Amino acid sequence: MLRGILVPFPTPFDAGGEVDARALRANIERWNLTGVSGYVALGSTGERVHLDERERLGVVEAARGAVPHELAFVVGVGEQSTRATIADARRMAGAGADAVLVLTPHFYRGAMTADVLCEYFSAIADASPVPILLYNIPQNTGVALAPEVVARLSLHENIRGLKDSSGDMLALIETLRLVGPERDDFVVMTGHGGALYAALCAGARGAILAVGCAAPELCVAVSEAVEAGDYGRARALQARLAPLAAAVTTRYGIGGLKAALDLLGYAGGTAVRAPLRTPGEEARREIARLLEETVGDKERGTSDP
Amino acid sequence: MLRGILVPFPTPFDAGGEVDARALRANIERWNLTGVSGYVALGSTGERVHLDERERLGVVEAARGAVPHELAFVVGVGEQSTRATIADARRMAGAGADAVLVLTPHFYRGAMTADVLCEYFSAIADASPVPILLYNIPQNTGVALAPEVVARLSLHENIRGLKDSSGDMLALIETLRLVGPERDDFVVMTGHGGALYAALCAGARGAILAVGCAAPELCVAVSEAVEAGDYGRARALQARLAPLAAAVTTRYGIGGLKAALDLLGYAGGTAVRAPLRTPGEEARREIARLLEETVGDKERGTSDP
Amino acid sequence: MLRGILVPFPTPFDAGGEVDARALRANIERWNLTGVSGYVALGSTGERVHLDERERLGVVEAARGAVPHELAFVVGVGEQSTRATIADARRMAGAGADAVLVLTPHFYRGAMTADVLCEYFSAIADASPVPILLYNIPQNTGVALAPEVVARLSLHENIRGLKDSSGDMLALIETLRLVGPERDDFVVMTGHGGALYAALCAGARGAILAVGCAAPELCVAVSEAVEAGDYGRARALQARLAPLAAAVTTRYGIGGLKAALDLLGYAGGTAVRAPLRTPGEEARREIARLLEETVGDKERGTSDP
Amino acid sequence: MLRGILVPFPTPFDAGGEVDARALRANIERWNLTGVSGYVALGSTGERVHLDERERLGVVEAARGAVPHELAFVVGVGEQSTRATIADARRMAGAGADAVLVLTPHFYRGAMTADVLCEYFSAIADASPVPILLYNIPQNTGVALAPEVVARLSLHENIRGLKDSSGDMLALIETLRLVGPERDDFVVMTGHGGALYAALCAGARGAILAVGCAAPELCVAVSEAVEAGDYGRARALQARLAPLAAAVTTRYGIGGLKAALDLLGYAGGTAVRAPLRTPGEEARREIARLLEETVGDKERGTSDP
Repeated sequence: MLRGILVPFPTPFDAGGEVDARALRANIERWNLTGVSGYVALGSTGERVHLDERERLGVVEAARGAVPHELAFVVGVGEQSTRATIADARRMAGAGADAVLVLTPHFYRGAMTADVLCEYFSAIADASPVPILLYNIPQNTGVALAPEVVARLSLHENIRGLKDSSGDMLALIETLRLVGPERDDFVVMTGHGGALYAALCAGARGAILAVGCAAPELCVAVSEAVEAGDYGRARALQARLAPLAAAVTTRYGIGGLKAALDLLGYAGGTAVRAPLRTPGEEARREIARLLEETVGDKERGTSDP
Repeated sequence: MLRGILVPFPTPFDAGGEVDARALRANIERWNLTGVSGYVALGSTGERVHLDERERLGVVEAARGAVPHELAFVVGVGEQSTRATIADARRMAGAGADAVLVLTPHFYRGAMTADVLCEYFSAIADASPVPILLYNIPQNTGVALAPEVVARLSLHENIRGLKDSSGDMLALIETLRLVGPERDDFVVMTGHGGALYAALCAGARGAILAVGCAAPELCVAVSEAVEAGDYGRARALQARLAPLAAAVTTRYGIGGLKAALDLLGYAGGTAVRAPLRTPGEEARREIARLLEETVGDKERGTSDP
Repeated sequence: MLRGILVPFPTPFDAGGEVDARALRANIERWNLTGVSGYVALGSTGERVHLDERERLGVVEAARGAVPHELAFVVGVGEQSTRATIADARRMAGAGADAVLVLTPHFYRGAMTADVLCEYFSAIADASPVPILLYNIPQNTGVALAPEVVARLSLHENIRGLKDSSGDMLALIETLRLVGPERDDFVVMTGHGGALYAALCAGARGAILAVGCAAPELCVAVSEAVEAGDYGRARALQARLAPLAAAVTTRYGIGGLKAALDLLGYAGGTAVRAPLRTPGEEARREIARLLEETVGDKERGTSDP
Repeated sequence: MLRGILVPFPTPFDAGGEVDARALRANIERWNLTGVSGYVALGSTGERVHLDERERLGVVEAARGAVPHELAFVVGVGEQSTRATIADARRMAGAGADAVLVLTPHFYRGAMTADVLCEYFSAIADASPVPILLYNIPQNTGVALAPEVVARLSLHENIRGLKDSSGDMLALIETLRLVGPERDDFVVMTGHGGALYAALCAGARGAILAVGCAAPELCVAVSEAVEAGDYGRARALQARLAPLAAAVTTRYGIGGLKAALDLLGYAGGTAVRAPLRTPGEEARREIARLLEETVGDKERGTSDP
């Protein structure tokens, strides 16, 4: 199930600032029609770190009901201590996660040596009732999972893959080389929209992309073009995707992605929890312009299929 | 009350890995006799991020009972969202904190602009029933509080100081210059043991130091020597302190500090919560050697007074 | 002429430590038979910064005589001031360079804004009698040429391309997107051996690779496989190339590359100028082992064609 | 002679862009009256990297004639290869340098290990007819001289000191600790204007400061206040110096410093060699304002003595 495009959905908040489970379900029902292969709840885009335990369970339960069983349903976990992360993984497995995406611990980053990280992820994998995926996002955590560490961990039977959001293609390539083409049950996915085409060329099996929320069909089209061996078309589609991907991540953040969803008619409005900020009017206009260029005109030959 | 040396104590765990409140109280009673000016519970050294809410309250309540009212009792707080941090500050104030030390939010570090940080800390300060101190520790968070941001925030009447653990002396100096010598009610403290003497020279009012747990009297002596204008003696004492300070922070981490306390006869053993590790035998011997050199021979003229 | 694989040859030194022009010519004659598309003299691999002006001219003159006119002959230039770099470019054009590869100025890196870099390269391009290529190697210079800067400079008619040694694939992809597929006369080449396949997938036209000195046929084979649309084979060849590429660049440096050439029977020995060092025996054995794995057995189906 | 404030003078250019030896001599004669302890020719501020060999000799000869023999006259050297740097040191000693300030080699920065740097500086020191000073300026070179490396090199009898421009006070403090207070013939000097007071507190013996060209008397006053044990006054003078120091270094660069000299009536105009730029009108006004605040009113009690 872990191939193609997975949608790491944002958590919608209602006017009072509380989790809006109805909006979430409505969004998932719409994404279900786009060709995506699954979902990630409570990822970085899902503001997991802004939600308390009760809210997290609410998100997972609401989503679980709307995600068809033939699609992947992954849930983000990850506290700073091994014991808290194990408890988190068990809770999310109990709430219906097919797999958990485990963030690197990072507050004591100076202590996160290769051995410490291996021991940590092995302990989580040993204890988790469902398979785990490694989550590498050094731009948020300051901790990078080296290719050698991923390769060591790929031998654990309950560790089934990596989401790499670093955008460091040389590390991704080296990871794929070290894991080896024969380890078919360990899935490397990129989490960086600007790297989608390049990661697939390098041998990644799929992607978990914030921009996939706003342009799921275009992301799926890039993936399918590579799968079909049409690299020229894939590259052209990637060039179309890139500015929107940058806008809804590094440039305007989660607020930017929510504004894009709002403009596209998804439910949920643009609220993010403070200290994050909702983009202003100018940013909103820029996002609207980028949406128009990227997914707006389905008539042209190169538009979303 | 915020001057001199504050002890950011580690959280002792018992053989079963649970918080050992009795050991904590015993340690505080011993530090009470050393000339320190106060305590910080649940800081980085206190493994706050490894404790759940119930455990955090347990630590604060146990410590509160052992800290004399003429000493400062600061408690570390800080979640990623504004609303969770406000709730945390209120809870800790209710449990007896004189002030709260508020960590920068950091998971969405790319979004932590100067304006966002000012808005965040102002909101916490508005809502907190007790004064707040800003906590800058970019080596753990990846977010640095710029001198300009600290200077802006120093104007808020419920923001009373800064703990700067960065070790960036140029930033500390610039912060002190921008805040101005006349803002007597805003206290700049260093949180970096290697920078104690330099920070005091630059005009810092005190320090919150992990190495202060292991060598409280030597830290107090550095502070008193600067206060007395005896810069030569202060510099010599600092040179004696430096290797131990490095060992119980960057080199061997919290496990190293706990080993040092163990060797000095404090209660609590050397356990840290995974994924952190307890130092091995060789590290323990090195720490013992450093303790011997640093605090071991009270006869010499330059020893702890 | 700027496509395929260009060889940025090292400068051979004789037993007395002086430039060995005869060895250089012999090496070029051997590389001429491997399918490479051209050469770069006096690049980073060529120890340009270790040669005086007279020696540089000696290298260029020796090489010019051995490089067939249907192959590209590029010469590295680049001083810190605009006027010195212009003089350098003129001198090298006079000595027979088809084009010059112009390093970013970098000693005053804090002053190297986008505007300053655009002005600099434009001035060199205006004054150079031969076309110029931009040279981005931030790991040596601390100055990165942003995609926007390259795109602006690509409009200058005497600026014909970029050698990007950064290994930052996202920047390379963005550069190609901003330059646009229609700007056929501006050539983007990677200078990072680990990125060869990925860069070609992304649309780079060729590569200038230190590892190309030691494994020219394998590098050419990667390039031809992508050209032929055989991405699977290209990826497999790249995986074979990667460890050797790392060994003769980041791991053992120019000394490592010269040791590899020595082991392969090229002329010139392994001397590098101090403070660089010749690799020791263990490194030499490791390089021999990597050569064996990478280019040693031409019988296998995936070996150098 | 290496104590107090040394002036690392910029190289004046005439209207035609050539070195203006007469202006240089005039400036030195003026600085001779300010209480400074000596000069550094051809440092980073002196645009050494923008001058050819003939020009460098011209600068040194012009300056030598104007520097009284009781003041220190240090000359910057440093090429990328050991042999070229030795030749450079010999040439500058021959032209009258009392000592040479040797930059770290840096183009192959990945190869600049502690051992390589020790070997390099030892080789230069062995061959140089005059004493050498180590020059650490990682913000320009990307190579930092670790305290351990400086301490090892301090044992060489022809290595007499360190100019540390990094602004990393913790490294400076650790360097002083490792060198030891008894090594009286090894002089640690700061090269960072913002760190002057802090470095002197930490035990540095003096400073080589770009801002010392524009505010020599204020810099000397800071140094004398620390020497006299008047730390409060020194700190206040440092706070006055800081904004000007930032302006004529990181903010407006060498062009900013030359503009300041111009405004103060020194000879030489504001030209810098491209790609560096002369500051515009707004920057010039800001520099004028800072000069006014810093050195403008000699009547006040805290003004330049």
